[in-house]
Amino acid sequence: MLITILGIIAGAFTTIAVLPQVFKVIKTKSAEDISMWMFVCLLIGVGSWTLYGIAKEDWPIIITNGLSFIFNGTMVYVKLKYSKN
Amino acid sequence: MLITILGIIAGAFTTIAVLPQVFKVIKTKSAEDISMWMFVCLLIGVGSWTLYGIAKEDWPIIITNGLSFIFNGTMVYVKLKYSKN
Repeated sequence: MLITILGIIAGAFTTIAVLPQVFKVIKTKSAEDISMWMFVCLLIGVGSWTLYGIAKEDWPIIITNGLSFIFNGTMVYVKLKYSKN
Repeated sequence: MLITILGIIAGAFTTIAVLPQVFKVIKTKSAEDISMWMFVCLLIGVGSWTLYGIAKEDWPIIITNGLSFIFNGTMVYVKLKYSKN
């Protein structure tokens, strides 16, 4: 039971983590300091986790990583939109 | 077998993702655009995954998330060091 709660906390925090970064970039309209490679690696990583979840029919893995894929994809979009170089 | 390879790719990319961001901040000495909240959420998340792995005695979870915790902790350190505000 305690382990399940720990898993839910862990999944929730790693999934939502990128959102404050997305909001910060939209608010400040600045994304120079952000590494595109970080979010490309995250897209490959959580995309692979989503496929892994689909292959294993593991719904918690599919949902958390599928959401992460959408959030990180949004981050790549705002990085491209607000980066000047 | 293919599923295991997918899991290794997924684990590797999500674990190393933060490193290009750490190197970029050290190189440019600038971290204004980076959200501290993102990395605080990631620290809570991967820290919880590490405890989850310890509770379940699941070594791949412990190793990937333990490394992520160290890398994200380093990111918080460089953010604090190079942020002017």
